[in-house]
Amino acid sequence: MKIAIAQLNYHIGNFEGNLEKMLRAMDDAKAQGADIVVFGELSVCGYPPRDFLEFDDFIRQCRTVIAKITKATEEKDIAAVVGAPSINPVVEGKDLYNSGYFLADGKVLHVANKALLPTYDIFDEYRYFEQANEFKIVTYKNKKFALTICEDIWDVEGTNPLYDISPLDKMLPQEPDVILNLSASPFNFDHANARINIIRANVERYGLPMFYVNHSGSQTEVIFDGGSIVMSPNGNVHDELPYFTECVKTYNLEDVLNGRENREQPKDKIKLIHDAIVVGIKDYFGKLGFNKAILGLSGGIDSAVTAALAAEALGGENVRGVLMPSQYSSDHSVKDAEALAKNLGMPHDIIPIKDIYDSFMGKLQPLFGDLPFNVTEENLQARARGVLLMGLSNKFGYILLNTSNKSEMAVGYGTLYGDLCGGLSVLGDVYKTDVYKLAEYINRKGEVIPHNTIHKPPSAELRPDQKDSDSLPDYDILDEILFQYIEKRQGPKEIIAMGFEEAIVRKALRLVNINEFKRYQTAPALRVSGKAFGMGRRMPIVGKYLS
Amino acid sequence: MKIAIAQLNYHIGNFEGNLEKMLRAMDDAKAQGADIVVFGELSVCGYPPRDFLEFDDFIRQCRTVIAKITKATEEKDIAAVVGAPSINPVVEGKDLYNSGYFLADGKVLHVANKALLPTYDIFDEYRYFEQANEFKIVTYKNKKFALTICEDIWDVEGTNPLYDISPLDKMLPQEPDVILNLSASPFNFDHANARINIIRANVERYGLPMFYVNHSGSQTEVIFDGGSIVMSPNGNVHDELPYFTECVKTYNLEDVLNGRENREQPKDKIKLIHDAIVVGIKDYFGKLGFNKAILGLSGGIDSAVTAALAAEALGGENVRGVLMPSQYSSDHSVKDAEALAKNLGMPHDIIPIKDIYDSFMGKLQPLFGDLPFNVTEENLQARARGVLLMGLSNKFGYILLNTSNKSEMAVGYGTLYGDLCGGLSVLGDVYKTDVYKLAEYINRKGEVIPHNTIHKPPSAELRPDQKDSDSLPDYDILDEILFQYIEKRQGPKEIIAMGFEEAIVRKALRLVNINEFKRYQTAPALRVSGKAFGMGRRMPIVGKYLS
Repeated sequence: MKIAIAQLNYHIGNFEGNLEKMLRAMDDAKAQGADIVVFGELSVCGYPPRDFLEFDDFIRQCRTVIAKITKATEEKDIAAVVGAPSINPVVEGKDLYNSGYFLADGKVLHVANKALLPTYDIFDEYRYFEQANEFKIVTYKNKKFALTICEDIWDVEGTNPLYDISPLDKMLPQEPDVILNLSASPFNFDHANARINIIRANVERYGLPMFYVNHSGSQTEVIFDGGSIVMSPNGNVHDELPYFTECVKTYNLEDVLNGRENREQPKDKIKLIHDAIVVGIKDYFGKLGFNKAILGLSGGIDSAVTAALAAEALGGENVRGVLMPSQYSSDHSVKDAEALAKNLGMPHDIIPIKDIYDSFMGKLQPLFGDLPFNVTEENLQARARGVLLMGLSNKFGYILLNTSNKSEMAVGYGTLYGDLCGGLSVLGDVYKTDVYKLAEYINRKGEVIPHNTIHKPPSAELRPDQKDSDSLPDYDILDEILFQYIEKRQGPKEIIAMGFEEAIVRKALRLVNINEFKRYQTAPALRVSGKAFGMGRRMPIVGKYLS
Repeated sequence: MKIAIAQLNYHIGNFEGNLEKMLRAMDDAKAQGADIVVFGELSVCGYPPRDFLEFDDFIRQCRTVIAKITKATEEKDIAAVVGAPSINPVVEGKDLYNSGYFLADGKVLHVANKALLPTYDIFDEYRYFEQANEFKIVTYKNKKFALTICEDIWDVEGTNPLYDISPLDKMLPQEPDVILNLSASPFNFDHANARINIIRANVERYGLPMFYVNHSGSQTEVIFDGGSIVMSPNGNVHDELPYFTECVKTYNLEDVLNGRENREQPKDKIKLIHDAIVVGIKDYFGKLGFNKAILGLSGGIDSAVTAALAAEALGGENVRGVLMPSQYSSDHSVKDAEALAKNLGMPHDIIPIKDIYDSFMGKLQPLFGDLPFNVTEENLQARARGVLLMGLSNKFGYILLNTSNKSEMAVGYGTLYGDLCGGLSVLGDVYKTDVYKLAEYINRKGEVIPHNTIHKPPSAELRPDQKDSDSLPDYDILDEILFQYIEKRQGPKEIIAMGFEEAIVRKALRLVNINEFKRYQTAPALRVSGKAFGMGRRMPIVGKYLS
């Protein structure tokens, strides 16, 4: 028996595209001698389909694709295990199940429904799906398969406090030979290890091999890293598929059972984040039908790293940088930005903004009267730049990239409709201290990001001699406090008890909470951590908590 | 036995403020002779607290308030039924319950947990809460109370396909005398009738009186209309509390049992939407600590209606209108806007944008070369206006109001970072055809919105002689198609079958789906319908469905 894994990059709602891709994978797997090819969770429609699931029309289209793949199993003489919603025949409860279809010989042999429905962070599965209440296995070519969907394997031995059942415990009495798991398990920088650990816990408990199939590619902000796993019953990693790339690969079940292989890929945090963001940019553009980006280059680290990542995703020639110095910009800003553009092979323009700023102030000054220069005039510069970038974006069909990092997004250090403009936030889930590490990684083979950009003190350059440290704690300290509050959900009491200065902690947390209104209107940020701003972190704007 | 209802306007996370309000309501109820005062769902922390619930610190603060109210029941000699999260003592399952606390004589007499956890539209309750598995009643002063939380009463006689239990069925064998329901039931324009119908279905099935307590006031985009209900066992509405206002009112249980009263308030759709939006603006400003608004006045219907609603919420003198004509603005635009400002007693300014537009074009034209005038130049005008408004907003501490309506938000007829700027979208859940009805309602006692503003054809005035109808179907038709797609979740097939022209349907649905990226970055819109854009409608940006 030969089993193939199809680790594919789906496109939500693009039924024709997904079908075509899956049929091609069936051909590839067949050519590799496979008896069965296994796809990911909700592969037919892409993951997460979100409220598209509430449209009957969308569900009908899923069923059409299932019917076509079912037919193809006969024509191509290979079984296929695919993920798709199925309709709950019982009136009570949610209308749908999140299902795995075992298709063979032109027939639906079996449908397994997901039992553990993640409803936390970015996941909303109980919004749409009823949980499974039946646990049957399926036999094909004399082998018995336990078919599970993603989270179903995450409560082995009752270790997961979120759930009170473990589907494989229910299937075990039926004596399966192989565990299949159809996943759509989003990337974060320490998730690959967690994944291997949970698969190992299952394999060791049940004494069975597991074929764990993940998606690759990105859907808006949610990135799938692939890294599908074939694990032998002895807990060895028979194979771990490459990260962030599509792949169809076939395994001889006998070899997997032997457990003689044990190969894992290295898991370096900064490399993983780098690769995730590159694929995130690539797919955001590709799936929306764009191929060119534009961004403002300030000479600072955030725009430099954003440009380098975009250049890697789209090609330097497809990323246009715009330098927009004001009277407060330092000389080195323009030089550093020009050096970067040269290193990346990016087209770039220089548009001084003083005339535009003056034309705004010419209208506003009479209304402002004697009120002193303040954040208003700083924002005005950022917004003039936003308008210029959006003008070029509209005229030439670029997507504007937002260059804000997670530390800035957290404390609201950015101008709404100014530097917070953009269709995609590239670094919005990367703390400032990690942006520096990304820069070093990008420079691993030689200088791409200019040395001066990395080593000068961070500044918004919106007033004379401004430094970030004028109004914010040092990023070393700030980022640790933010990490405890955002990722670890610690309160002020707990964070102060860790040894941070009380005034700084209270200020940082207050800034996070009062700036919810800015994040609400900012582009989706590519998610690389376990808790990113956006769909996975839902906060009231008018809340008055720690604020 | 006298029972008081406290229909209050809470503030999410403002524990001190909520506590103070609740203690005052206890005093008021006591002064009215009440034995018990009943508050709304999660009254201690406000609803919806969203991911604040994931912070132990937040839950600790809820418990502190509960302890203080418990103590007050003894000091003030009145029992209190309050809503708050409680901790699930079992490791497996979610960490919290959504609970009702029956507090009396300085003690926690009883804690009832919510069993039906809405997880659809704007609701995410299964994200945080475990469902109740125990159904006990509580006795106080010889009366037995069945304590339910909001959705718990929405599956009477198995009529709700979402759930398979009805908590009151489980409690009935314990022979309760009175049903209490602690709700946080958000407004939409036809919800008040649905509410009365479901309460009546319960009362008639169980033969018991019900005290149904709702919140009033608004939390970001979610508006609570109050309208708390006391219903007699015969199905008569003994009382319906006023809409959109706080109220503490006491009832003699004997009178309620008699069932001699039957009084309901009128439920006029446009009046309800009007009043909801006014309270929505008022609370958005009040809860964020602002009292002044600014907006652009184009002379068109949307900005006029927005201004009138804001003037009602904040006072005309606290709403500043800015007229920003361009070379494409018609003469009547300025005149109509000036007439509006005069009618509302609003301060207003006129800032022609031609110089600013020219200064942008001076920089961009060399890069645009010979490319023709297109949407880029239209957007540029809208964005110049956005920057001016934000400049005034920053300098003087205004919140900028977004004036886009739901039809425009749906099809993406608006400029990101231009007219889509603003902290709050006032009309983002009101279709264009209803905006006209709101205008007529606002004019019910005399002209507030100028006649010409209502009767001229809608135009963005961003190019010569532009009309909305140049690029969009007539709003009469468009709004019906949008309503079927957005509110009713009908697909193209179903909508075409209703008799709409296929090309128009496909174009409208495509526009809705490809403009998700704009809505993602737009302010929260006050929710007045059963399906608003924002937190209750979650769509992928990179999806390719009907697009």
